[in-house]
Amino acid sequence: MAKRLKFYGWGYENTGLTDAEREHLFRFVVNHLGVEPVAAPPPQASDIALRAPRVAAPPSLAHVLTSEPYERLLHTYGKSYPETVRALARDFANAPDLVALPATEAEVAAALDWAGGAKVAVIPFGGGSSVVGGVEPAVGDGYAGAVSLDMRRFGQVLEVDATSRAARIQSGIRGPAIEAALKPHGFALRHYPQSFEFSTLGGWIATRSGGHFATLYTHIDDLVESLRTISPAGAMESRRLPGSGAGPSPDRMMIGSEGALGVITEAWMRLQGRPRFRGDAVFGFPDFFAAARAVRAVAQAGLYPSNLRVIDNDEAGAYGVNAYEESLLVLAFESADHPVDAWMARAVELMQNSGGRRHVDEGAASRWRTAFIRMPYGRELTVPMGVINDTFETAITWDKFEAFHGAVRKATEEALKEATGHAGTLSTRFTHVYPDGPAVYYTFNVRGDPTRLIEQWTHIKTRASDALIAAGGTITHHHAVGRDHMPWYRAQRPDLFGKALAAAKHALDPAGIMNPGVIVP
Amino acid sequence: MAKRLKFYGWGYENTGLTDAEREHLFRFVVNHLGVEPVAAPPPQASDIALRAPRVAAPPSLAHVLTSEPYERLLHTYGKSYPETVRALARDFANAPDLVALPATEAEVAAALDWAGGAKVAVIPFGGGSSVVGGVEPAVGDGYAGAVSLDMRRFGQVLEVDATSRAARIQSGIRGPAIEAALKPHGFALRHYPQSFEFSTLGGWIATRSGGHFATLYTHIDDLVESLRTISPAGAMESRRLPGSGAGPSPDRMMIGSEGALGVITEAWMRLQGRPRFRGDAVFGFPDFFAAARAVRAVAQAGLYPSNLRVIDNDEAGAYGVNAYEESLLVLAFESADHPVDAWMARAVELMQNSGGRRHVDEGAASRWRTAFIRMPYGRELTVPMGVINDTFETAITWDKFEAFHGAVRKATEEALKEATGHAGTLSTRFTHVYPDGPAVYYTFNVRGDPTRLIEQWTHIKTRASDALIAAGGTITHHHAVGRDHMPWYRAQRPDLFGKALAAAKHALDPAGIMNPGVIVP
Repeated sequence: MAKRLKFYGWGYENTGLTDAEREHLFRFVVNHLGVEPVAAPPPQASDIALRAPRVAAPPSLAHVLTSEPYERLLHTYGKSYPETVRALARDFANAPDLVALPATEAEVAAALDWAGGAKVAVIPFGGGSSVVGGVEPAVGDGYAGAVSLDMRRFGQVLEVDATSRAARIQSGIRGPAIEAALKPHGFALRHYPQSFEFSTLGGWIATRSGGHFATLYTHIDDLVESLRTISPAGAMESRRLPGSGAGPSPDRMMIGSEGALGVITEAWMRLQGRPRFRGDAVFGFPDFFAAARAVRAVAQAGLYPSNLRVIDNDEAGAYGVNAYEESLLVLAFESADHPVDAWMARAVELMQNSGGRRHVDEGAASRWRTAFIRMPYGRELTVPMGVINDTFETAITWDKFEAFHGAVRKATEEALKEATGHAGTLSTRFTHVYPDGPAVYYTFNVRGDPTRLIEQWTHIKTRASDALIAAGGTITHHHAVGRDHMPWYRAQRPDLFGKALAAAKHALDPAGIMNPGVIVP
Repeated sequence: MAKRLKFYGWGYENTGLTDAEREHLFRFVVNHLGVEPVAAPPPQASDIALRAPRVAAPPSLAHVLTSEPYERLLHTYGKSYPETVRALARDFANAPDLVALPATEAEVAAALDWAGGAKVAVIPFGGGSSVVGGVEPAVGDGYAGAVSLDMRRFGQVLEVDATSRAARIQSGIRGPAIEAALKPHGFALRHYPQSFEFSTLGGWIATRSGGHFATLYTHIDDLVESLRTISPAGAMESRRLPGSGAGPSPDRMMIGSEGALGVITEAWMRLQGRPRFRGDAVFGFPDFFAAARAVRAVAQAGLYPSNLRVIDNDEAGAYGVNAYEESLLVLAFESADHPVDAWMARAVELMQNSGGRRHVDEGAASRWRTAFIRMPYGRELTVPMGVINDTFETAITWDKFEAFHGAVRKATEEALKEATGHAGTLSTRFTHVYPDGPAVYYTFNVRGDPTRLIEQWTHIKTRASDALIAAGGTITHHHAVGRDHMPWYRAQRPDLFGKALAAAKHALDPAGIMNPGVIVP
């Protein structure tokens, strides 16, 4: 029997933190947040009463649409903080009426045709790992019902072009299956977002996902060679081209459209050779700004390391990597073609010129990385204790970075206090680095009032988002917009672009059924 | 007195080929095309009778709009082959009624307001170096008149952010002035299309220009950090961000819009350090496909050379670089930060593994390069002799490349013969190379009938364009769409994307006055 995903938290049913990880987490909440661990039983599907579906599948789509309760629960939420609070509170008021599980493009098109006629909202669903409210069928009363359109049956790598190093891949396939299918060909997509295990190619493209590479080709945008999508108005397929200057890029309109313009069914993706040569080093810096200056020097040197991540003193301390005395910088190069010694040597030189202390033991980096990958499993334990914890991320040009960081930290720290009366913790890292600026990622934890978690979270989220937009950042570098970020996305987006996008949507989705409330208007 | 541009050919008045270059060109047309050189006096502005302007500037725009005959002549044509034929034939029937020379965004907006009300078409004009009919006011009878909107007064680098390595640059500035303004800051944009001396930043962005870098950041798309545009519906400005995942990219809708959605007024552009370290090598290969395999190996190795260009045996021979016995490959690395020896060593190894013979004398590359840069000056001499010569360019994935190249060459060679009865010459090079495929550039020359040049050219252009679209390529990798490529652009573009783009245009340009006939519909 296939493993089932939890409908209320991260990962598969009956998986979670190890005993040791749980202990570490509990120590953290006791010592840093003053919270006493409590155990709470997770919700069971059988406990939850769902409203009767407001719409019924037409006979021709009976094999595609289901009202099975577990499926409806699984498709109610992504993995944002407030969604997890509501899931654990057994609140599934916005469950989709039906879940579509199409296996062919014809079935996708038929589902959209029916939904358009019946004024049913359609929410495309990949892995459901959205942390921004991108997949919740919270579509209001303007619709007869809501269908979550799960693409998991589009799960194959269809074709590998070894000459051009590209593969035609269906959108509903998750990260590990992509890599497993490419490995026998000697290739890899090497796109590893934190959600890699549970997110899909289509989800990555729809949300402009960022991978693990810290520089160069890391945004999924650059890895897409061509795209195929189904909109209510029909199918659209771009040509496979290594580059083109023929009008505005069709792909770049669909990339980042978050299901509002149509459903991605497959893509030709650019592949990498599997790395054979590596170089790694870890450096300590007295503070985050010193580390940032070193990062900037490497980012502007044209060396393109695969890793160039910084975690600040607070994050290093909170993850138990050190005792808060250093910011850590992880540098790595990889290549499928050539030794990377010359690249490493110059980057190490730049690090040391910038005041970095090279670590002999590189274990700090892997300790942090493991903690990072496992982190999402913690929330189902901490929410019942009344912990508010979340992350937000942005990008900013280097000239503004220090003032920006100060303003965002100050607003967030104030907001934690205002919302909860407690100081909590706030830490920062860089996830990606460009020659003109870093992608900055913030993590906060605070003791909340278990009866007011969403209200308190909303205050913190609002203050932090207001601050980062006021200081010139983007509301998201790679988490996407979803429903949660719409107010700030509208503030950030040029007004006229919003109007152009709404007009484009109307051409593709005349009945306005595609993921309403997200991206457009 | 400022130098004036020729209104009928390349460059400034009273400039052209040197005596030696002219001799070389004449030898080429005699030996290869069987054409006898004839001299023809260039047109004089005073010889040409322009129709009276069909519209008059309103008093409030009298200082912005001019009907001065030289300006109207200069703004009638870009630099395509058929445009040059018509210019030399003194045919300026489509001259704009007026030329706008705004100095401020308010003047741009006022000109668009007036034009919208008066149903006057507006054709944004940068350097006028379009080779695809992008700037000719050939707008048909649906408009009361046509205005060419020349952005040359937007000629400044306004701001340099040395920390983020970016500069705010007005759109009407030409290449040399950009580099001159950045040099004192130690930076360079390093975007060198062939037209560099006579084309503008705004033109590059509007047409998705390709620079001289053969790999990595060469398309202008990647160098744009943010954009400011004026459309009939208003102004639009994107945030300066090093990266973002907030919805579809606003910049990517305007980049490549060729004036059909609005006028670019300024952009924040990503800069480079000025190179201090270089490595160069030239290799000979027995044929083009052998060279292509070497190029592919280097393109897929993650080395990112600044140059990785191939010219085939025909082009090397025709340019007098060798006696047709080899395809030439030019390899170069550059860096502002570090010696490039390790990069060169590996690339040289890959070249030699692929059968490349390294040249001791690297002069072949610079002989070819000089000939390439100077080539556009030749056409005003060869057209009066009845020579048809033009270039077209595309991109294709590696898996299809050899069959594609065969099909395109065959169709073009047949078309030369069908159109003129003569074989002519056809040669090929790569201008840019991606891991998944090359950008392929074709040059043809043939003896035509001086009374039927445009008809003969149209046959050749049509056959070649049909072939490259049928074989899977793009109608343009960096020359843009203009009016000349619209039929094939429509064939290549997903239909629904065309509809979405038309809807977006209607939102930005409700009266449909912006560069009608280009990109939309």
